Amino acid sequence: MTTGSPLRVGVFVFDDCEELDVVGPYEVLAWWARHSALRPEVVTFSADGAGVRCAKGLRLVPDHGAADVGPLHVLVYPGGQGTRTLLRDREHLDWVRWMRARVPLMTSVCTGALVYAAAGLLAGRPATTHWGAFDELAVIDPSVLRDTESRFVDDGDVVTSAGVSAGIDMALHLVARLDSPEEARTVRRGIQYDPAPPV
Amino acid sequence: MTTGSPLRVGVFVFDDCEELDVVGPYEVLAWWARHSALRPEVVTFSADGAGVRCAKGLRLVPDHGAADVGPLHVLVYPGGQGTRTLLRDREHLDWVRWMRARVPLMTSVCTGALVYAAAGLLAGRPATTHWGAFDELAVIDPSVLRDTESRFVDDGDVVTSAGVSAGIDMALHLVARLDSPEEARTVRRGIQYDPAPPV
Repeated sequence: MTTGSPLRVGVFVFDDCEELDVVGPYEVLAWWARHSALRPEVVTFSADGAGVRCAKGLRLVPDHGAADVGPLHVLVYPGGQGTRTLLRDREHLDWVRWMRARVPLMTSVCTGALVYAAAGLLAGRPATTHWGAFDELAVIDPSVLRDTESRFVDDGDVVTSAGVSAGIDMALHLVARLDSPEEARTVRRGIQYDPAPPV
Repeated sequence: MTTGSPLRVGVFVFDDCEELDVVGPYEVLAWWARHSALRPEVVTFSADGAGVRCAKGLRLVPDHGAADVGPLHVLVYPGGQGTRTLLRDREHLDWVRWMRARVPLMTSVCTGALVYAAAGLLAGRPATTHWGAFDELAVIDPSVLRDTESRFVDDGDVVTSAGVSAGIDMALHLVARLDSPEEARTVRRGIQYDPAPPV
């Protein structure tokens, strides 16, 4: 199977994934996909292709199921309450390892890192997660080198981000890395990402 | 019709609305709804209740249609390419004015302000929009006092935000205003909104 694009990004969605974990990176990467000369492609997919209900109640209909999503260059694995079910699901963890063997760049947002850890992807490696989930991460795999300071951790073929909104920063980093800092700045300007939290 | 909640927030969605315009505020407000003692409620709705395809391709299924969404205290009107169709739709503009007469707090993200302007809601008032849409805004209603500097503009019963990601900042402001700055800080910490754009 060929994709016609060397930069095919898949955003995985599941029941009780956190809304902004999905859509923060999606917005950045899809903006990039629309404007970059590299013509990347961004798709969403769920395990079985069915719609999902996110953690706060938003309903999404993905483009594909895992069986027909096709080859990916980048996987984005969001966090959310639903990760607590998935990290105990042996079949799902087998699938994560199967993806690891095929997808060059595995990324996670927030507590998506807990699932990666449960699948063994983070053993002995630096990683981050939501600030409230570092203890859980240590229980799942004590060998993970927990980075509690960084907004995201780029360890080559695995990139993890901190909680929820940090997925936006990680996605801009991915654009800078896979394309160019200039292109990432163009996306940043497009989504007017000059954050100024009022509280 | 009563809602059982004095703080019922409706996020309007439509074809070609921008993904993060919707989900940035939704995440902030829904997080607040889950944790606040005020027990606010956040719902999504489309004109006819059917699913929508957002501007970058994400498909959302709303909770309601406009006919059955019920009374709202706050309307969130996102931007996106789809606004260019809606701001020329007389029936839709009538509906926006109908909402204005019933919803105490009308808010917009990004180019949602263009539709508000076309409906006459911003006449002679300060407002903002996406940085690339100020000229369009001036053509639609030259009396709008365009604020090109602020992340969002709170003019009492109308609050407009700048482009795309600015909806997150506006939504935190809404939580601070409708509930308390302390509550808004709790949401900010929950979504780990300590932005650090890498480019």
